[in-house]
Amino acid sequence: MESSTEFVRVQTSFALQGLMRTLGARLTHATAGEVCIELPASEALSQQQGFMHAGAITSIVDSACGYAALTLAPEGADVVTAEFKINFLRPAIGERFVATGKVETAGRSLSVCRGEVVAINGNASKVIALMQATVVRVQPD
Amino acid sequence: MESSTEFVRVQTSFALQGLMRTLGARLTHATAGEVCIELPASEALSQQQGFMHAGAITSIVDSACGYAALTLAPEGADVVTAEFKINFLRPAIGERFVATGKVETAGRSLSVCRGEVVAINGNASKVIALMQATVVRVQPD
Amino acid sequence: MESSTEFVRVQTSFALQGLMRTLGARLTHATAGEVCIELPASEALSQQQGFMHAGAITSIVDSACGYAALTLAPEGADVVTAEFKINFLRPAIGERFVATGKVETAGRSLSVCRGEVVAINGNASKVIALMQATVVRVQPD
Amino acid sequence: MESSTEFVRVQTSFALQGLMRTLGARLTHATAGEVCIELPASEALSQQQGFMHAGAITSIVDSACGYAALTLAPEGADVVTAEFKINFLRPAIGERFVATGKVETAGRSLSVCRGEVVAINGNASKVIALMQATVVRVQPD
Repeated sequence: MESSTEFVRVQTSFALQGLMRTLGARLTHATAGEVCIELPASEALSQQQGFMHAGAITSIVDSACGYAALTLAPEGADVVTAEFKINFLRPAIGERFVATGKVETAGRSLSVCRGEVVAINGNASKVIALMQATVVRVQPD
Repeated sequence: MESSTEFVRVQTSFALQGLMRTLGARLTHATAGEVCIELPASEALSQQQGFMHAGAITSIVDSACGYAALTLAPEGADVVTAEFKINFLRPAIGERFVATGKVETAGRSLSVCRGEVVAINGNASKVIALMQATVVRVQPD
Repeated sequence: MESSTEFVRVQTSFALQGLMRTLGARLTHATAGEVCIELPASEALSQQQGFMHAGAITSIVDSACGYAALTLAPEGADVVTAEFKINFLRPAIGERFVATGKVETAGRSLSVCRGEVVAINGNASKVIALMQATVVRVQPD
Repeated sequence: MESSTEFVRVQTSFALQGLMRTLGARLTHATAGEVCIELPASEALSQQQGFMHAGAITSIVDSACGYAALTLAPEGADVVTAEFKINFLRPAIGERFVATGKVETAGRSLSVCRGEVVAINGNASKVIALMQATVVRVQPD
């Protein structure tokens, strides 16, 4: 279990995301500019063919990108996703999925992040999705 | 309740999507080239500020776009999302959210769809997200 | 020839874009929130099969989206493209191409625009590309 | 000057792209799955503030991504861009710009590529744009 300042900050916000709890996702890594979120496969998250739904995969990598940006934002600032684009490279088949978000540039207002999702099956892992996202800083009231 | 051929076809597949059930989403409309999915707001789908998570909003409009493409695909064909891009225009605040997906062009292999999500609060409604997606046809084995 | 305030404002900036001149593009319409740019087909803008290059088509619809946002920005403000996504629906075959950019939401900092490009051949016209763009306001020094 | 099989194949197609000639772009590198294209700054490619126009930057990285996919396509196949998304991280200021396209996955029909553009000023270089693209294989008649 990590206990860096970044991890604690992200974990505090992550715990407030009802969706992450509903999906069964877990924060596993957070350092300056990089965050990982893990999601076990589950029937409750499937699409019509039984694979993980694109929406579930997207949700964890969106959160990973947003939180990667948060690690570089000033104390007290929050972030929201302005937009993203995601390509699905392969069907989301696996025991679990690890989404990694990384900051490419952090501006005063906008950060650009890249994310990827890896499907893990025993010892094998494959990249199944790639994201490119714009995250915007907001000052809570 | 609609009972068109398109609605029945989409509903049959929709019922197999574990994620739609987990989120609490409901298919409300399906005609040739256009599908609507509705999602009631819920704490279980929130992000850290209490609004609906971008991932939940994205999930329903991704499904709406995919199913819009399915209504134009030959009998027996299925569809999967190749990629999409989504802009979040406003915070996802509302009692419920309606995602609409429309086919812009349907090719033999690739369809391009546009989607939008409207937040509804009493009598007021606001567009909160816009999607542009590429859906690919697949032939099940 | 239009002579609205918006048209004059956009035309003044458009005339400074070396790339529009190099491509042979022409501003044809600018009202509040909507701008059109026209481009005649030319061998000088081709890709390897002789159709218009995706980059030429993208350039005019990027400018159309940016200028649509400019029409809604305060006097003295300028705009730059933060990001966009474009789908190419059909090969860019035609005598000329008309790109239209429209503002979907105009925020204080970010505007979201949608664009499309139509190929014109005699009396026939076809949509060949769809864009979704984020434009950011900047205050010139 | 490279003379690998990949370089010759890409150069042959590149020489047919009128737009690359019009922009003044040059193919500088092509190996299996990776292509670089260089563009000198020029007033003829500017936007309204005098920086390089997003459309010019986009054109070279679109070609770089497409050609990266071409290096992995079977002999006789050609490629076209289905769609892409690009983020502009910084103003395009520099003496010259180098776009690199890399294949992330090459499927039978669709390839997903990532691209970046670096601005070069003397000894300094900065990433100014990031692309994520879907390229589709086509069989010429």
